Amino acid sequence: MRAAIYNGPHSITVGERPDPVIDAPTDAIVRVVLSCVCGSDLWYYRGESPHDLGPIGHEFIGVVEEVGREVRGIATGDFVIAPFIYCDGTCANCRAGVTSQCINGGGFGNHGIDGGQGEAVRVPLAGSSLVPVPGSGYSEGTMRSLLALSDVMCTGHHAAVSAGVTEGGVVAVVGDGAVGLCGVIAAQRFGASRIIALSRNPSRQKLAAAFGATDIVAERGDAAIEAVRELTNGVGVDAALECVGTGQSVATALAITRPGSMVGIVGVPHGVDASIADTIVFRNVGLRGGVAPARAYIPELLRDVLEGRINPGRVFDFETDLDHVAEGYAAMDERRAIKALIRIGTKETSR
Amino acid sequence: MRAAIYNGPHSITVGERPDPVIDAPTDAIVRVVLSCVCGSDLWYYRGESPHDLGPIGHEFIGVVEEVGREVRGIATGDFVIAPFIYCDGTCANCRAGVTSQCINGGGFGNHGIDGGQGEAVRVPLAGSSLVPVPGSGYSEGTMRSLLALSDVMCTGHHAAVSAGVTEGGVVAVVGDGAVGLCGVIAAQRFGASRIIALSRNPSRQKLAAAFGATDIVAERGDAAIEAVRELTNGVGVDAALECVGTGQSVATALAITRPGSMVGIVGVPHGVDASIADTIVFRNVGLRGGVAPARAYIPELLRDVLEGRINPGRVFDFETDLDHVAEGYAAMDERRAIKALIRIGTKETSR
Repeated sequence: MRAAIYNGPHSITVGERPDPVIDAPTDAIVRVVLSCVCGSDLWYYRGESPHDLGPIGHEFIGVVEEVGREVRGIATGDFVIAPFIYCDGTCANCRAGVTSQCINGGGFGNHGIDGGQGEAVRVPLAGSSLVPVPGSGYSEGTMRSLLALSDVMCTGHHAAVSAGVTEGGVVAVVGDGAVGLCGVIAAQRFGASRIIALSRNPSRQKLAAAFGATDIVAERGDAAIEAVRELTNGVGVDAALECVGTGQSVATALAITRPGSMVGIVGVPHGVDASIADTIVFRNVGLRGGVAPARAYIPELLRDVLEGRINPGRVFDFETDLDHVAEGYAAMDERRAIKALIRIGTKETSR
Repeated sequence: MRAAIYNGPHSITVGERPDPVIDAPTDAIVRVVLSCVCGSDLWYYRGESPHDLGPIGHEFIGVVEEVGREVRGIATGDFVIAPFIYCDGTCANCRAGVTSQCINGGGFGNHGIDGGQGEAVRVPLAGSSLVPVPGSGYSEGTMRSLLALSDVMCTGHHAAVSAGVTEGGVVAVVGDGAVGLCGVIAAQRFGASRIIALSRNPSRQKLAAAFGATDIVAERGDAAIEAVRELTNGVGVDAALECVGTGQSVATALAITRPGSMVGIVGVPHGVDASIADTIVFRNVGLRGGVAPARAYIPELLRDVLEGRINPGRVFDFETDLDHVAEGYAAMDERRAIKALIRIGTKETSR
């Protein structure tokens, strides 16, 4: 099969990889229909994080082609969403709803596991990981939103859950990437009365507003802190969603949140300094979050997608195919795209 | 009047200070009955934190001697608990229950405000700060527990609230100082099914057990992490209370908490390094806490003290008087005492 291959910083090519086969009886083989590039893929693309050379990509939806003899609940021909972390569904962390910390789980597209940016994927622990999508005949818009459930929408939702967003609350979203924009959707979905999006990019501001943002703050750093405080009578917001992961964005999120409240953090931390402990303690602002338990969140978000209440697929503003996957990375790296969709197969594709 | 005076590291004396007088119409003058030394007093005593030279101490109970003309709810002769941070009760943070972050508030025993380790104190914003204690004729044990409500018991409670301790949960308490021991009381009060106290001091272990600890872990660092994981089937606790504030104790608390749960932090951070952001995100363990909103917590804890359900006053295992206040600091500094009580007046004392 053909798949995207990481050769080192700024070098993505498409090459031949062995066709995946059932290895463990709990495996399934999924033929990929849609995949995409994640903001977190840019860390290794830019050489800022280590990553195995080889297959990449951890977000995909597709059609089940084969299942191992112990797979339950998933059958050949099912159209499925793959959460970006597979999980056993039975360990203590899975039972607690934190499937992203599954003791037997792992991620796609690294450490010898097939990537989502390829024609097919061997999915470990398939019965407890893959989520079948009921019905058929989805519109292009729905297909894109289903793909967003693989990671980015669940990650924005995790920021909102971690920050404790409640109905009527005032929420700030730090970061206007695809995760931040999905954070706006999540805050709106929880009934926030006011959603302040920190963004200085006009097209992203527009999408944030379409998703429910009521206020836009275009400033950064201290000026952004000042602007949010002014919007909230000097008090700060009831919840902040940290969707970037830099030292400045974490500091901003902690500073704009009112004492007694929480920052939901889903940005992968890069260069966050020690003073956050002081901020937490001296301002009584909590910090909570991490890798989103997508498998646990997909069912409830899937309902909202299928019933048309949320449209996270709108974050895909760039599209290419597997042969040109490197262009998706480049477009996101250069901030020409919010998020790049990779069209790989169709629902009717078979081997 | 006589009061304890800080002259610099390791130098506490008792000297004359001006008798406090009503300055603002919202002030009250309180004649101190009991005061004590806080673990946080040791930071400046040891020269590890800055502190104004002059009056010290922020925990006290006493009798109201005079009130300004705008003080409501408090009258001359009332027996009162002073929360260690005074507050206006009306700002956005106070209304949200975070009285320790009152926009117009402040602490005792620094920055020109009288200290609790003295014969009398001018209490700003007295009507919204002081909590009158109903009834009379309290036992010595009750008096000590009332004093503990000024700070230490509220701080242990804040750790438990911040960590989200729930009925039936498994809780670990990192730190066997007076705050950690009060954290054990708080966890027991919330109905934790199992309370693991990290302590290697036999007398503190004994008090922790008396307060409700079901398990004692005497190890530190990696060995403590391993021990708590073994006690919890490798999963970690449902909530951890961080009651020390060093880099090692914060790291330990984050490491022993299961993904999806929270660490309640009330130790003042000293030397906490940047890796905590990584831990929060990669383990999905939250960190929340800070300076306890004692004024907001005292009423509910006071009920439990007066009805004999909790006895936080048992943390006082050393007693002296104002003339010998320096001995209280030395005993705590050398870890000969958990917490030193300073007997200054009696409820019947008048000027």
